[in-house]
Amino acid sequence: KRQGFPEVIYGEGKTVEQIQAIIHAIKAKNNNILVTRVAKEKAAPILEVHPELHYDETARLIYWKREVAPANVGQGYIAVICAGTSDLEVAEEAAITAEVMGCNVRRIYDVGVAGIHRLLDNLEEIQHATVSIVVAGMEGALPSVVGGLVSHPLIAVPTSVGYGANFQGLSALLTMLNSCASGVSVVNIDNGFGGAYNAVLIDRLANKA
Amino acid sequence: KRQGFPEVIYGEGKTVEQIQAIIHAIKAKNNNILVTRVAKEKAAPILEVHPELHYDETARLIYWKREVAPANVGQGYIAVICAGTSDLEVAEEAAITAEVMGCNVRRIYDVGVAGIHRLLDNLEEIQHATVSIVVAGMEGALPSVVGGLVSHPLIAVPTSVGYGANFQGLSALLTMLNSCASGVSVVNIDNGFGGAYNAVLIDRLANKA
Amino acid sequence: KRQGFPEVIYGEGKTVEQIQAIIHAIKAKNNNILVTRVAKEKAAPILEVHPELHYDETARLIYWKREVAPANVGQGYIAVICAGTSDLEVAEEAAITAEVMGCNVRRIYDVGVAGIHRLLDNLEEIQHATVSIVVAGMEGALPSVVGGLVSHPLIAVPTSVGYGANFQGLSALLTMLNSCASGVSVVNIDNGFGGAYNAVLIDRLANKA
Amino acid sequence: KRQGFPEVIYGEGKTVEQIQAIIHAIKAKNNNILVTRVAKEKAAPILEVHPELHYDETARLIYWKREVAPANVGQGYIAVICAGTSDLEVAEEAAITAEVMGCNVRRIYDVGVAGIHRLLDNLEEIQHATVSIVVAGMEGALPSVVGGLVSHPLIAVPTSVGYGANFQGLSALLTMLNSCASGVSVVNIDNGFGGAYNAVLIDRLANKA
Amino acid sequence: KRQGFPEVIYGEGKTVEQIQAIIHAIKAKNNNILVTRVAKEKAAPILEVHPELHYDETARLIYWKREVAPANVGQGYIAVICAGTSDLEVAEEAAITAEVMGCNVRRIYDVGVAGIHRLLDNLEEIQHATVSIVVAGMEGALPSVVGGLVSHPLIAVPTSVGYGANFQGLSALLTMLNSCASGVSVVNIDNGFGGAYNAVLIDRLANKA
Amino acid sequence: KRQGFPEVIYGEGKTVEQIQAIIHAIKAKNNNILVTRVAKEKAAPILEVHPELHYDETARLIYWKREVAPANVGQGYIAVICAGTSDLEVAEEAAITAEVMGCNVRRIYDVGVAGIHRLLDNLEEIQHATVSIVVAGMEGALPSVVGGLVSHPLIAVPTSVGYGANFQGLSALLTMLNSCASGVSVVNIDNGFGGAYNAVLIDRLANKA
Amino acid sequence: KRQGFPEVIYGEGKTVEQIQAIIHAIKAKNNNILVTRVAKEKAAPILEVHPELHYDETARLIYWKREVAPANVGQGYIAVICAGTSDLEVAEEAAITAEVMGCNVRRIYDVGVAGIHRLLDNLEEIQHATVSIVVAGMEGALPSVVGGLVSHPLIAVPTSVGYGANFQGLSALLTMLNSCASGVSVVNIDNGFGGAYNAVLIDRLANKA
Amino acid sequence: KRQGFPEVIYGEGKTVEQIQAIIHAIKAKNNNILVTRVAKEKAAPILEVHPELHYDETARLIYWKREVAPANVGQGYIAVICAGTSDLEVAEEAAITAEVMGCNVRRIYDVGVAGIHRLLDNLEEIQHATVSIVVAGMEGALPSVVGGLVSHPLIAVPTSVGYGANFQGLSALLTMLNSCASGVSVVNIDNGFGGAYNAVLIDRLANKA
Ligand SMILES: Nc1ncnc2c1ncn2[C@@H]1O[C@H](COP(=O)(O)O)[C@@H](O)[C@H]1O
Ligand SMILES: Nc1ncnc2c1ncn2[C@@H]1O[C@H](COP(=O)(O)O)[C@@H](O)[C@H]1O
Ligand SMILES: Nc1ncnc2c1ncn2[C@@H]1O[C@H](COP(=O)(O)O)[C@@H](O)[C@H]1O
Ligand SMILES: Nc1ncnc2c1ncn2[C@@H]1O[C@H](COP(=O)(O)O)[C@@H](O)[C@H]1O
Ligand SMILES: [Mg+2]
Ligand SMILES: [Mg+2]
Ligand SMILES: [Mg+2]
Ligand SMILES: [Mg+2]
Ligand SMILES: [Mg+2]
Ligand SMILES: [Mg+2]
Ligand SMILES: [Mg+2]
Ligand SMILES: [Mg+2]
Repeated sequence: KRQGFPEVIYGEGKTVEQIQAIIHAIKAKNNNILVTRVAKEKAAPILEVHPELHYDETARLIYWKREVAPANVGQGYIAVICAGTSDLEVAEEAAITAEVMGCNVRRIYDVGVAGIHRLLDNLEEIQHATVSIVVAGMEGALPSVVGGLVSHPLIAVPTSVGYGANFQGLSALLTMLNSCASGVSVVNIDNGFGGAYNAVLIDRLANKA
Repeated sequence: KRQGFPEVIYGEGKTVEQIQAIIHAIKAKNNNILVTRVAKEKAAPILEVHPELHYDETARLIYWKREVAPANVGQGYIAVICAGTSDLEVAEEAAITAEVMGCNVRRIYDVGVAGIHRLLDNLEEIQHATVSIVVAGMEGALPSVVGGLVSHPLIAVPTSVGYGANFQGLSALLTMLNSCASGVSVVNIDNGFGGAYNAVLIDRLANKA
Repeated sequence: KRQGFPEVIYGEGKTVEQIQAIIHAIKAKNNNILVTRVAKEKAAPILEVHPELHYDETARLIYWKREVAPANVGQGYIAVICAGTSDLEVAEEAAITAEVMGCNVRRIYDVGVAGIHRLLDNLEEIQHATVSIVVAGMEGALPSVVGGLVSHPLIAVPTSVGYGANFQGLSALLTMLNSCASGVSVVNIDNGFGGAYNAVLIDRLANKA
Repeated sequence: KRQGFPEVIYGEGKTVEQIQAIIHAIKAKNNNILVTRVAKEKAAPILEVHPELHYDETARLIYWKREVAPANVGQGYIAVICAGTSDLEVAEEAAITAEVMGCNVRRIYDVGVAGIHRLLDNLEEIQHATVSIVVAGMEGALPSVVGGLVSHPLIAVPTSVGYGANFQGLSALLTMLNSCASGVSVVNIDNGFGGAYNAVLIDRLANKA
Repeated sequence: KRQGFPEVIYGEGKTVEQIQAIIHAIKAKNNNILVTRVAKEKAAPILEVHPELHYDETARLIYWKREVAPANVGQGYIAVICAGTSDLEVAEEAAITAEVMGCNVRRIYDVGVAGIHRLLDNLEEIQHATVSIVVAGMEGALPSVVGGLVSHPLIAVPTSVGYGANFQGLSALLTMLNSCASGVSVVNIDNGFGGAYNAVLIDRLANKA
Repeated sequence: KRQGFPEVIYGEGKTVEQIQAIIHAIKAKNNNILVTRVAKEKAAPILEVHPELHYDETARLIYWKREVAPANVGQGYIAVICAGTSDLEVAEEAAITAEVMGCNVRRIYDVGVAGIHRLLDNLEEIQHATVSIVVAGMEGALPSVVGGLVSHPLIAVPTSVGYGANFQGLSALLTMLNSCASGVSVVNIDNGFGGAYNAVLIDRLANKA
Repeated sequence: KRQGFPEVIYGEGKTVEQIQAIIHAIKAKNNNILVTRVAKEKAAPILEVHPELHYDETARLIYWKREVAPANVGQGYIAVICAGTSDLEVAEEAAITAEVMGCNVRRIYDVGVAGIHRLLDNLEEIQHATVSIVVAGMEGALPSVVGGLVSHPLIAVPTSVGYGANFQGLSALLTMLNSCASGVSVVNIDNGFGGAYNAVLIDRLANKA
Repeated sequence: KRQGFPEVIYGEGKTVEQIQAIIHAIKAKNNNILVTRVAKEKAAPILEVHPELHYDETARLIYWKREVAPANVGQGYIAVICAGTSDLEVAEEAAITAEVMGCNVRRIYDVGVAGIHRLLDNLEEIQHATVSIVVAGMEGALPSVVGGLVSHPLIAVPTSVGYGANFQGLSALLTMLNSCASGVSVVNIDNGFGGAYNAVLIDRLANKA
């Protein structure tokens, strides 16, 4: 395990008791901690027992940073890009995960393809990133457009936001896999954590962390 | 049937003899003619018998205009938009169909989403159209971007161009159905004819043809 | 933005507070407002804060018309057509959206394909429309039949009504995309709003709004 | 086996030699014979060896009637209904199968849903049938419309005719399974033989054959 | 409408008030009544207002027989066949529908394919039926086996009973559509009503009702 | 590698030269050999170079037995069961694979579910097997029926035989995965080799090979 | 029925009363009992009436062993293998089922493919098993890796654990069906019971139970 | 465009003449060239006209390096990993693409998951790479296993190699998207080029090219 990387727990389907026990064990080993997909109702009793932990309701993440990663402060940043409020949960799961893992993050959140000019207004900030995470639901076209505008690696994260022929994110997933922009790779639907993990690995390589 | 509208024959799966016979019958009734999806090998013997007809190899269309439609010349035009050579067949099926039905057409063909600036360079011509037909394969994101830039109706035509997770055009079809741009409606995969037919009906309404 | 067009908010997945805040911001800018997919329980507290707004329970729409669109009153109308009670929600979403956007609407609601004569009894009213919106669930065959009877553009809206091999509207969607009637284009499953938006754009072109 | 019923062989995937051998064996037992799905090239050498057999190229059927079924001549008939040339192969497979099995058949072939009046022109003949076989490709809407007009049982046969979102007949199949007309049951895509077999069983019950 | 046939209402998605109103209207016209897919909680208040109606909890049917159909009592019967308790709801929807429509019904319910001998023990009763309705979930193999044992028409009804690779009845549906037994036709998943409707039409033809 | 087990080569997609080279290398190491999925045209030149090998055209297998496996001759046998000519290729791939691997095989080939009595006629031989391989296409119901009649393990092999809603074997695959008979496990579509491999492992355990 | 085998009841979709009645009937016949898929809330009232039964909350199994199976104690064992807490329910359903049916079971539970060394640490115990049951969700790769390391039969059980492109277990199911390791056969998603049943049949053959 | 990056042409669906013309135009602008998916028959006449180009038959690539990229020679390398001969085409498309773009490549080709020890034998070379491209067909499990063994970014490339339930690569694609190893992102089925492009971008960041 790389220095400063948190121990990651997949919270979905685990009980409050199970998560409490795992956190208890990890703390003894002095590690950083990240628990993903923790619903609000499950987070409350966990934080009562472990009051030094943080919980982010939008991202549904519990996290704790004891050991500081050899951070790349001042050097580079990961751009987390999405269209708006609907994809916020997944975008924040990605952004906070990357921050907990020691990276700088810039959030660029109001830039859907149906209003291309808002995206272009933020172009410089996007292009200067080391790596981008692009989160999109519905038709999932944003990574293709961003991918054509940047020359760094881009991790595309489809979300399950949509209805009807969206088929729980299948539409956005297929769009991203078929992207005609080069330099786009894809993770699972709603997997903001996975998108961030990939971006962090790249950011560390680029910044010799 | 509206004045000047061609009699339309779906050529796929019909024999040379069947198509020849239908054309023969129609010509007697003095109509305009449009035969779709005619492969090159089938077109040759048909044009030998009916040398006054035209054949377009890219669009795979046979057509004949005897009666002139009450055209909207000089008034408005349909924009046919696509990314490049791969979608050319379907785009030309749409463009020529619209022309045979009496409309002005402007072709804007080198404008994929992975190179957004080429699209923006043509923006004025696109925005001044009465209606747009946007043809796209692979991830099919072009209609979403164009739809956000225009305020007229847009007919999206997915194509089967692509491979792997494209699933013969399913990817582009789902993208278009889920478009977060308003004013986008969709026809079947590779249905350039259908896209044009819809656009022509709208163009005629707009130009009181 | 065209004159008189409402600001449109996608209500699904937004909290009461988020919707209230957005409405508050829009009202300051003096626009018309349309909020789609608002469940009854969410609408009540919103209307308490904004009592001048209207809510339609069937269509699940909140709307407010302050600025009058340059309406096409007395000129033409959009026909909204469906089979019966099951598809009413989507049909009303379409009809009210079109009305809020300044169009005349005629509702023709008791005309499923399994009783073709009721459809034929309303034929003249349907044929005189500028554009039709045809809403259908189950097998979704109604647009094909209507499409063969009219010579104006037709927007087909599949609904998720049905069970078993309906697959949440997939059956109706595929039916409409494969329609052998010309002049039919399709929007997403249950997307009454999108169907109306397309129809309104066409209606304005036709009536020089 | 009911009297006069042919021995049925599924020809697809069988070699010329295998089919010849089976026919040879059956003839010794003095039965009627029906071989389905025999391509033209395979039929020729088979008929050379068994010149008393008949081959229908459209229906791709080889058949031979030695023993006469206790026919219901003059009593009732099966209506075989389809839209046009594209579905002819499957419709003829159904029609000839029913005839070989001793039933009267009326072909009503030019009646697609996009031209509902041609269907209504043939309504009386359809309504007087004992049972209908309705063959349709593309969106497959014809059985729903016919089903609403008749009060006898209707066997719907989807065909694989179409392209794009047709998915080799899936679209028509789903349409028929979701039919909102009562009295419609469905067989496999392109299974004209199976549609006929069901209709013949019903026709015999009705006519006490 | 044939004599004695009930007016049929699809109860799913209709409110208690809507169903009460429709029943009220029908009773005035003196018809028989059948309401399908009525959950227990919705049935109670309806029967309070219309106490002369019957409700079957397993079949989820409300029905009322005022006018007696010209029944085929003593002449023939429909066999309703299924494997066991899991498919009982759909089987009873079929059986009671057929009874309300004036037919004799024999229930043969403990005969799944994994215990073929129980099926064979009931063979004679099955073979003497005029028509069979075979209801099956999971792998849906029962119609193929029964179809090979009888020479009358068989309506196959797939159910959504199962899990995993059952995909809500898709597995059983495909099995039945691919049946290699002749004389099998299929209705929608869980459509016990539709299976019965088809069987009743055939039974009436056979028994000259 | 167990004694007497052949080296197995997946022949699909390999060139004649590649297969020849692999065989050459294996022979040097004195092993038994099995090459699967070798088309007739590819087999001929391979056997010219290696004339001591055997080729079975139906099973599309090349094989060579130099070292004799510690066979279970006279002790037990594997039953390979299928309906008829259509599934013969896959059944023979299974049967010969098992024989090459040193097991006794009994072929029971004319026993489809649509004619259950032929299956019952062979019941004793099936029940006395150590393990059964049941090969079925179309609706794939045979393993469910056999599974209910035997108390030994059963390997189900779906085939891609069928058309329309068969979807290249998907129908049979789903049927087998959903089998309500206990003791049935499944391998990939058309994987006769895999079915045999599993059966051989079981047979060896049972017969202490 | 083999000696010592329990009567098995599929608990899903059955009421408490139905399960109580069936248990009551079986106990009279003195058999062993296994009820699968019983939720905690349903188990409580059942055990109140039948206090001698056992309930396992993780496996959701009710069971009772009165008659002792001719056990293979001290001879061999079934290895039940999975990655971690997420797949525990299905793994325990398999393990306890096998134990109730009289087999020795070894649980090897912390060995996912993303940490291959933990698997290799347990290799000897796995290789010495008579047969393995490998339970895996998410991408379902574990059976392929284990299958390459053992020479006994392996039953793969996909689970529905995962999200997004997992499609309720479809991903794991396809992975297992396509396994390039020989000796792997597959049962339905989440079918721990079925996996165990197959393994028990093999174990008995191997140990002459 | 980054220095030394080739102009990339998607060769599929383009004619020999079209490709020749594009190459002609690029050479004038002095760029490096890469043409993907060029079948052998199409490559021959192209190389006749442009004899200085190279063609690789396995990878189906035409390429030309005139301008040398500021290479990272001696610094780091990309590992291209696959199981064997079946996935060679896609692996070589990736490897050669990366080389043409100026990166060092190490090929590790005989390491499928069904023989885990061959993979472990190459572990050190894999772990020392800057980034890995893992190519896999059939069940596609290799990226999950490799991903658990390395701490650098991994690009997974599913291939369409397989049959039956492989569904043209869908199985491998889903496996990779669901990978429980962190640091894995995915590109389209058979997209060796896209996998390499992503890896090259990362390699350049890491090696400050
Ligand atoms: N939201 C997530 N999506 C995908 N994988 C995750 C997620 N959260 C955690 N993981 C992975 O799951 C592993 C922990 O799984 P577990 O031991 O079940 O808690 C971590 O090492 C991560 O690789
Ligand atoms: N076109 C067809 N579609 C479906 N089933 C058929 C068809 N033709 C024949 N059959 C059935 O296949 C059986 C004969 O199969 P076989 O013995 O393989 O020739 C007949 O008894 C029919 O039930
Ligand atoms: N369970 C059912 N499944 C399918 N169709 C049904 C069902 N119940 C009623 N129907 C059909 O729905 C029609 C009534 O629909 P509605 O007017 O919406 O109540 C009836 O005439 C039947 O044809
Ligand atoms: N028809 C087949 N289906 C599935 N797997 C096979 C088949 N034939 C061979 N195999 C497997 O493929 C491996 C050899 O693959 P290869 O090295 O590509 O020839 C063998 O060890 C078998 O496990
Ligand atoms: Mg880029
Ligand atoms: Mg727009
Ligand atoms: Mg029309
Ligand atoms: Mg009817
Ligand atoms: Mg039969
Ligand atoms: Mg059994
Ligand atoms: Mg093995
Ligand atoms: Mg890793």
